[in-house]
Amino acid sequence: MSLTQENAITGPDRFELEGREAPGALLNDVVRLLANHRSIRSYRPDPLPEGALDVIVTAAQSASTSSNIQAYSIVAVQAPERKKLLAEWSDNPFVAQAPLFLVFCADLHRLETVTQRQGYEFAERDMDVFIQAVVDTALAAQNAAVAAESLGLGICYIGGIRNELAKVAELLRLPPRTFALFGMTVGYPAKPSRVRHRIPMDVVLHHETYSDDGLEDGLRRYDETTAASGIYAGRRATLDDAKEAQLYGWCEHTARRLARPHPKRAGMRRQLEQLGWEF
Amino acid sequence: MSLTQENAITGPDRFELEGREAPGALLNDVVRLLANHRSIRSYRPDPLPEGALDVIVTAAQSASTSSNIQAYSIVAVQAPERKKLLAEWSDNPFVAQAPLFLVFCADLHRLETVTQRQGYEFAERDMDVFIQAVVDTALAAQNAAVAAESLGLGICYIGGIRNELAKVAELLRLPPRTFALFGMTVGYPAKPSRVRHRIPMDVVLHHETYSDDGLEDGLRRYDETTAASGIYAGRRATLDDAKEAQLYGWCEHTARRLARPHPKRAGMRRQLEQLGWEF
Repeated sequence: MSLTQENAITGPDRFELEGREAPGALLNDVVRLLANHRSIRSYRPDPLPEGALDVIVTAAQSASTSSNIQAYSIVAVQAPERKKLLAEWSDNPFVAQAPLFLVFCADLHRLETVTQRQGYEFAERDMDVFIQAVVDTALAAQNAAVAAESLGLGICYIGGIRNELAKVAELLRLPPRTFALFGMTVGYPAKPSRVRHRIPMDVVLHHETYSDDGLEDGLRRYDETTAASGIYAGRRATLDDAKEAQLYGWCEHTARRLARPHPKRAGMRRQLEQLGWEF
Repeated sequence: MSLTQENAITGPDRFELEGREAPGALLNDVVRLLANHRSIRSYRPDPLPEGALDVIVTAAQSASTSSNIQAYSIVAVQAPERKKLLAEWSDNPFVAQAPLFLVFCADLHRLETVTQRQGYEFAERDMDVFIQAVVDTALAAQNAAVAAESLGLGICYIGGIRNELAKVAELLRLPPRTFALFGMTVGYPAKPSRVRHRIPMDVVLHHETYSDDGLEDGLRRYDETTAASGIYAGRRATLDDAKEAQLYGWCEHTARRLARPHPKRAGMRRQLEQLGWEF
């Protein structure tokens, strides 16, 4: 069985894209599947195969969790009206198109309930337990993503769901001390999508200690690759005169994004505190 | 090729453990591998196969990332003296035993450098970009874990590395606006390990809206399963008289843990602020 063939998404995987070689024995079907990930932003209306949600959530629950606290919940949304609202709030129209939208919630509510059930007072009010909940949720979600892709489905993470934390909490009836960390669209891909180039590995991977020594060289290579890939085509026109001569690659694109606060997520800490989180 | 057979870790996977059935067509090798995850806390001294680190990090970099910001770095630690210190600080002796210890760092330093390199001021100082960095790091790490396990290696997440944030930052020469989110031991398993029961799926998975309706019933079932599994054997003796008659299962174990603040991670927000993070 070749899982990459089963997957409707074709085109070079990360090994091919980056011209990276690895010993053949290490390139098993799982590694190939992971290296073939691309976010899918267009879906066919076909429903998921019978039992797929169960398999995806079993995979999610199999991920590691901090001291087995399992500080997350998953809300599976399929109702068109609800998906439509979530699509609108997260600025991602294809959320309404995907047959399944999984909302991954960091969840301390259940743990507080359990602690009180046993006759104790819930005392973990520090930022670390927030980190534990966010990490638990993300590990579970990534297993869900991998399982879905192994079934030939496509996925896309939707961080935009945090644009409207309170509205989402109300719509999904989330209790206090939970929040929608991100969503994930799941369905059969309708259009081809490409694996995206990443920052050269020697910039991201450090040996023994962190070092910026290769950073400038790596950024230059990444800028060339991303500029040539065409993913930022059309953006260059918006550059001011002083920048005209420069490459418009990942560096410029990302810098412009980070040069202003996210327009819809200001005061995230205060918003989370209103949902019962403590830091 | 059966990846679960290749893996040195045998014993029931999650489907078998939970007596869960799924259509055979959906139980491919990837899903089986995910469902077979167990944390490994004892390692053989054998080195990783040639090229394995490269494959593991390629898999990590293939995970989704928020707007492609890739807000993480990985420090691969193999030097015995360094592993010994990290083992001690994280209260996990087997960190020194594993041939490879990957430290996954949330990283805004690189993004700040890139933003300044392009002539802008880094303006993302809100909690949301912290969340993006933590999620990016966790998604990459889970892909690394899955890739490693597909190669027959075992892994364990080490949240204990956050017990000594500042010391770890100094040892690994982490720049400001990065921090060691968690570590991951990687190596060939030396001892068998079991898949752990999880909270029943109907408690974690909600349809359309969040509901606590099945919580009490689910907790009772989970308590019975975990009490019977023997993982908490020996803990019951420490119960006070009033609790004598109760089951010692996941609920009591978890409640006792959450009834007092983590002894080594108090003031996590202040510690992170000292490392240059803003909320």
